[in-house]
Amino acid sequence: MIELNFDKSEKALLPAIAQDYKTGEVLMLAYINRLAWQKTLETGKAHYWSRSRDQLWLKGESSGHVQQVHAILVDCDKDSVVYKVEQLGGAACHNGYRSCFYRVVGREGLEVLGEPVFNPAEVYGK
Amino acid sequence: MIELNFDKSEKALLPAIAQDYKTGEVLMLAYINRLAWQKTLETGKAHYWSRSRDQLWLKGESSGHVQQVHAILVDCDKDSVVYKVEQLGGAACHNGYRSCFYRVVGREGLEVLGEPVFNPAEVYGK
Repeated sequence: MIELNFDKSEKALLPAIAQDYKTGEVLMLAYINRLAWQKTLETGKAHYWSRSRDQLWLKGESSGHVQQVHAILVDCDKDSVVYKVEQLGGAACHNGYRSCFYRVVGREGLEVLGEPVFNPAEVYGK
Repeated sequence: MIELNFDKSEKALLPAIAQDYKTGEVLMLAYINRLAWQKTLETGKAHYWSRSRDQLWLKGESSGHVQQVHAILVDCDKDSVVYKVEQLGGAACHNGYRSCFYRVVGREGLEVLGEPVFNPAEVYGK
């Protein structure tokens, strides 16, 4: 297995950027530990480590919006990665937007870009 | 100033992704604290917090390869940002590559993509 510099982080967590493999849109940023990295390499589905739940997180396990990994880029210091993904279900963000980065810094504050793709209440049953 | 969730991180550092504002290529990932965030908003030039030097880092202060910020995206949890930048000098990576993510996971290990844009020894005088 390709080793990353997990030791560089106190909690052995490194940032992973999910990017649309076709459009280049940055969809989300989450964290990986060695287990999540291993599971991603093994399965071709993006896995992260949930910091809030402190457990392995297969992206899409609740929503069905799995990220199929087409390629993985590793940075110069081996302490961050880019997952080039196909986002099933059309949206990465738990708020229903295609990308978690759905707001831009504007003159009056944050401005929302675009419209939600799904209704979180329907997908997560909240 | 737009507030980010710096308190979510123990060291008050959040990841910032620099992405080419035209091509969408992810150029690098570094960290920001409140001061770096403020300086970026004020100047329109990407600032980070250097974890190794523990000081404010104007990207390009040594190499001249400044990142002109064209837009800033903020994620759903306000704990990571995307700087949409114009990379002066053509390269973001201190190894001379256009992007720090110049290696891809291949069957036999990491494979280098492309060629360096500059010679680090010439730019940094090492």
